Amino acid sequence: MAKAVHHAQVRWSDPDQLGHVNHSRYLSYFEDARMELLSTSPSGLAGAPGDRGYIAARVAVDYRYPVEYRPGLLLRVETWASKLGTSSWTLSQEMYDGEDLVASCECVLVAYSYEGKKSRPLDPDERAFWSDYS
Amino acid sequence: MAKAVHHAQVRWSDPDQLGHVNHSRYLSYFEDARMELLSTSPSGLAGAPGDRGYIAARVAVDYRYPVEYRPGLLLRVETWASKLGTSSWTLSQEMYDGEDLVASCECVLVAYSYEGKKSRPLDPDERAFWSDYS
Amino acid sequence: MAKAVHHAQVRWSDPDQLGHVNHSRYLSYFEDARMELLSTSPSGLAGAPGDRGYIAARVAVDYRYPVEYRPGLLLRVETWASKLGTSSWTLSQEMYDGEDLVASCECVLVAYSYEGKKSRPLDPDERAFWSDYS
Amino acid sequence: MAKAVHHAQVRWSDPDQLGHVNHSRYLSYFEDARMELLSTSPSGLAGAPGDRGYIAARVAVDYRYPVEYRPGLLLRVETWASKLGTSSWTLSQEMYDGEDLVASCECVLVAYSYEGKKSRPLDPDERAFWSDYS
Repeated sequence: MAKAVHHAQVRWSDPDQLGHVNHSRYLSYFEDARMELLSTSPSGLAGAPGDRGYIAARVAVDYRYPVEYRPGLLLRVETWASKLGTSSWTLSQEMYDGEDLVASCECVLVAYSYEGKKSRPLDPDERAFWSDYS
Repeated sequence: MAKAVHHAQVRWSDPDQLGHVNHSRYLSYFEDARMELLSTSPSGLAGAPGDRGYIAARVAVDYRYPVEYRPGLLLRVETWASKLGTSSWTLSQEMYDGEDLVASCECVLVAYSYEGKKSRPLDPDERAFWSDYS
Repeated sequence: MAKAVHHAQVRWSDPDQLGHVNHSRYLSYFEDARMELLSTSPSGLAGAPGDRGYIAARVAVDYRYPVEYRPGLLLRVETWASKLGTSSWTLSQEMYDGEDLVASCECVLVAYSYEGKKSRPLDPDERAFWSDYS
Repeated sequence: MAKAVHHAQVRWSDPDQLGHVNHSRYLSYFEDARMELLSTSPSGLAGAPGDRGYIAARVAVDYRYPVEYRPGLLLRVETWASKLGTSSWTLSQEMYDGEDLVASCECVLVAYSYEGKKSRPLDPDERAFWSDYS
């Protein structure tokens, strides 16, 4: 199983007044990892022309370990497809600070036709792409 | 059952380039609703002195409806306690744009002793407070 | 001279680890005040269709007073036009926490034709609108 | 003259609905470049213990060129000291996308005693450090 790897840069203003990276920022790190992978997929980066859209229906994050800012800090995010349905799929993600698991994420994506304004079946090439990450 | 109500102000820069409020911003709206309620609880706002801490262990958001910026837009967030355990509790939340359900959220909070560096049982007054929102 | 008034909601995650609202968030508060006013102007909210665009060329902020989060905190932002040129104008802004001046801002806006890809003269109705705030 | 170099990672959610990186995000990129440099200075990263504090008194940004998100995009930020006074100094910064100048920034920093609650003269080793970047 292939996993996509992204390195997320932590910003000075990401921690909140408790000194830990605010939990909502984790979603941006996870999002950027997905976007980088999605941009290489047949459906392309969200918002690309055409009618192979997709939308995030659900995101769940488990927080394991508080992260503090330090200059140059990069968090490693690993992404893979943990479920592959007819018109939806689930990306699972883990984020690490060195060897420490910081948080894990599950994101349910739904293939969506902006023209038809409803969900659509995944195309064979989309399905093949995500199978490689399953 | 009492529900706490918070009104979240949507900012011009909250939507992303697809024109919809970015999914990570929803977590800030939900967080602010929780913080407002927590600040009136016996354990106080996170980061307050004393040893009645709590940490967010899990957040799950279901996205129902895309929100676009408009000047003056306020989203209504309702918060209540859906589970009440020995040392943890779950806050359920719903966010509305007028009558439309925009998103729902479940957040698992764990009572935590910063001195003992481990979870702690909820105190009776904390338990009583959350029972009123159950 | 008329001044437009906006109330900016401070979020729990706006302060950074020093406990003060991060300086970059001030720009979002000022921006939202401008956007609310611009949406009532003849040229409309940025991104509206047509060719009466405008772009921010320069923003300068003076920081006077550190702001801490408290539940329900709203900062009052006052906005007026301090200079009115042929194809650009300057909005001056002040932000208050109660009676305390928190920060002041100057933003230079340039009327811009997206079709012509260059600056354009302000139209008479645009000029009249901003004169009322001068 | 030495210049410090920082590479800022652009996030998917940094552009606003016009498709360009929101102007307030630039301040975070510039801030991170300063923080990285400040962390190597004798006064240390803001918020460090001791009484060699400093605060940002003024930030001015000139916007030259709109930036769009693309996966993997890093902006190069160069930072140097353009003025060195008794109790304050100015950091000038330029941000580049490849060879294109995206924005420039001037930030006035004031050496500040948190104990005395007033500005303080820069110490000789602080002055020497910033001279190397002048």
